[in-house]
Amino acid sequence: MSKTSKMHGKQTLLFANPPYVLGYAAIAGKKEGEGPLGSYFDLVNDDPFFGTKTWEEAESTMQTLACEYALKKAGLESKDIRYLFGGDLLGQLIATSFGIMSLQIPMFGIYGACSTMGEGISLAAMTIDGGFAEKTMAVTSSHFASAEKQFRFPLGYGNQRPYAATWTVTGSGAMVLGKTKTENAIDVVVKGITTGKVMDYGIKDSMNMGACMAPAAADVIYANLTELKRSPDYYDKIITGDLGTIGRDITIDIMKQKGFDISEQYMDCGIEVFDPTEQDTHAGGSGCGCSGITLNGYIIEMLRRKTWNRVLFIPTGALLSPTSFNEGQSVPGVAHGVIFETV
Amino acid sequence: MSKTSKMHGKQTLLFANPPYVLGYAAIAGKKEGEGPLGSYFDLVNDDPFFGTKTWEEAESTMQTLACEYALKKAGLESKDIRYLFGGDLLGQLIATSFGIMSLQIPMFGIYGACSTMGEGISLAAMTIDGGFAEKTMAVTSSHFASAEKQFRFPLGYGNQRPYAATWTVTGSGAMVLGKTKTENAIDVVVKGITTGKVMDYGIKDSMNMGACMAPAAADVIYANLTELKRSPDYYDKIITGDLGTIGRDITIDIMKQKGFDISEQYMDCGIEVFDPTEQDTHAGGSGCGCSGITLNGYIIEMLRRKTWNRVLFIPTGALLSPTSFNEGQSVPGVAHGVIFETV
Repeated sequence: MSKTSKMHGKQTLLFANPPYVLGYAAIAGKKEGEGPLGSYFDLVNDDPFFGTKTWEEAESTMQTLACEYALKKAGLESKDIRYLFGGDLLGQLIATSFGIMSLQIPMFGIYGACSTMGEGISLAAMTIDGGFAEKTMAVTSSHFASAEKQFRFPLGYGNQRPYAATWTVTGSGAMVLGKTKTENAIDVVVKGITTGKVMDYGIKDSMNMGACMAPAAADVIYANLTELKRSPDYYDKIITGDLGTIGRDITIDIMKQKGFDISEQYMDCGIEVFDPTEQDTHAGGSGCGCSGITLNGYIIEMLRRKTWNRVLFIPTGALLSPTSFNEGQSVPGVAHGVIFETV
Repeated sequence: MSKTSKMHGKQTLLFANPPYVLGYAAIAGKKEGEGPLGSYFDLVNDDPFFGTKTWEEAESTMQTLACEYALKKAGLESKDIRYLFGGDLLGQLIATSFGIMSLQIPMFGIYGACSTMGEGISLAAMTIDGGFAEKTMAVTSSHFASAEKQFRFPLGYGNQRPYAATWTVTGSGAMVLGKTKTENAIDVVVKGITTGKVMDYGIKDSMNMGACMAPAAADVIYANLTELKRSPDYYDKIITGDLGTIGRDITIDIMKQKGFDISEQYMDCGIEVFDPTEQDTHAGGSGCGCSGITLNGYIIEMLRRKTWNRVLFIPTGALLSPTSFNEGQSVPGVAHGVIFETV
């Protein structure tokens, strides 16, 4: 492979001209605002409907707000963005379609379950480094109530939740990337990506998604470290999306078996976003919005302050639908790794 | 804009090194096999379950087969493919997740409703031209029964279908692209793309999706022609995905109002794939599989034979879910244009 190649191994890219983070925003619900990261979010709305009449419209509204805030912080308008990559958890991505419509940006809909923030940033960065755009953006969201309605039980039923279950984050995160550093840009770039494969360990428990997704996360972390010939301490933080406490332990264990101790660097957005003792969220937060708001609220802020300088961000998705679950299928996982570095 | 830029206008790209079509395959159901294009498909299976127990597994099996056939025709194995772009109509893309898992290719899940074949090829081609891969592939599918189950009525209910309704195609299409011409490659390249925005004309009739999607198709065709300063006769064919007879008329009308007569070049996969008189399919075929099998069965064959040399392929998607429809939302549309040319 030539020295100028962007490709490393089978799954990793390092960009020739790493795109800059021009803008970023995190919009959150009340419970998320009350959690440990509450002060890092751009907007916390106490109204779970965000002024609309349905949970789905509320989620769309969060996406609209996340895009508007991210654009504003970047000092840009939607017409400055060449491509938008967006997706969510709902069937046929309705939160995204209705949420981003008013922006009128050429649009690629994406679905990676809760890995969507990583998938969107991967493609948004590739699009810039490939010479196809000056500026792009990625957006994702989840909403506790729209997700419960779709995947689990009616809220009024008040079902009991096992301790392995996670709590879907109500929130939306958006990020604007650019080819060149602008006045509003921060000193953070997307240095590269490691793209995951669909991994199925045969787990069928949709109330234990951390266990379903952990193998996919570990596979991406292992590919990143071996393909770039790095040890875990290259990174200040290795941050998964929403594995929660159970998925965390499995991921660290799998990596140990593969010869890497990542326990020092390891962090999980789902564990950080809620206080499980005070907020009764069991294994942690989950949903596209979980890594979405933790990245665009907290993680990027730590990079902006240069508290951290190298972060491997690996949101993970559990690939199930109510139909596949009811038909007895397992819950495969997928993960999308993104390397953020300060410059 | 520099002469070497790939970007034309706001929505169109022309690739610096247009990727070659290395392989392509169309897998179809019985009704599609009996239609006018039946002889062009690689495999027609009379069993609507494709040997499985559920409609969803049948759809996954079609995707597996489409990928396997396309790889075989390209003379490649799945390990030769760096990225796969795949999606379908089902909630949370379960047909794709379960269909492509065995290939173990780094994977980007995409959702563009019935425009998915165009979206996948767009991204697969960008990934190669951007220097991120030697070989990529795109796959999509739909299944009449899994779509009816999800979006409309139980099959046993035997609901009446208005004449504006389309019939979801049971089929899957896959295409393998490569940076360089291989022994198995055909003399066809992806010359460029025109990416659509989400367009909403406020139509709420999910039984008339052609009308919902026509504005999105016309917007992309108009952008392609104006941004590249072309007249419609640059193309041998301008082919939409599944607008059907009603959407066709609207698209041609909108384009006439914008000053372009595309009636000579116009074709629609949904109109070609079934015989409406013999097959009782009303306005035509639809679904991701409609443009998927028409492209990878018929259109590519016409290009391979050089019967046609320049084709603008614009599959279109109607962005609705059972939830958004029940909540009274409109049905916005999106479209993804791909320019195929012989070399």
